[in-house]
Amino acid sequence: MCESNIYLVSPDQEDDNGELFLEAVDELLPEGENLWRVTSIFGEQKILAGRIRSMHLVDHRIIFERPAAPA
Amino acid sequence: MCESNIYLVSPDQEDDNGELFLEAVDELLPEGENLWRVTSIFGEQKILAGRIRSMHLVDHRIIFERPAAPA
Repeated sequence: MCESNIYLVSPDQEDDNGELFLEAVDELLPEGENLWRVTSIFGEQKILAGRIRSMHLVDHRIIFERPAAPA
Repeated sequence: MCESNIYLVSPDQEDDNGELFLEAVDELLPEGENLWRVTSIFGEQKILAGRIRSMHLVDHRIIFERPAAPA
């Protein structure tokens, strides 16, 4: 199966070692500005606020940056 | 291998039967507003202008919408 895991990092974080948000993701659909509906192969669905930093499909890793905190 | 093919559709196109832009894509990196650097498992790299409409990883399909033509 070719699903990916989604990880969340802070916008100012330099490395990609983020918190696991959802594993085994099959579908990602944009739901608006920096808002995504993601669905796993198990049918679990979550809404994710953030923007894509990078996708590494062969490594099964998609990295999202959380929205910047209000100043 | 878990790479995906990238297809391009017009913004006003309702179906997802787009033109193949690059196959066997491993990495996608945002390069700016609606600009992406995509790299295949063969090392081929292209710049893509558009926004993500949907990603279906198990089906190996990523659909991008081309930028809207100037009015």
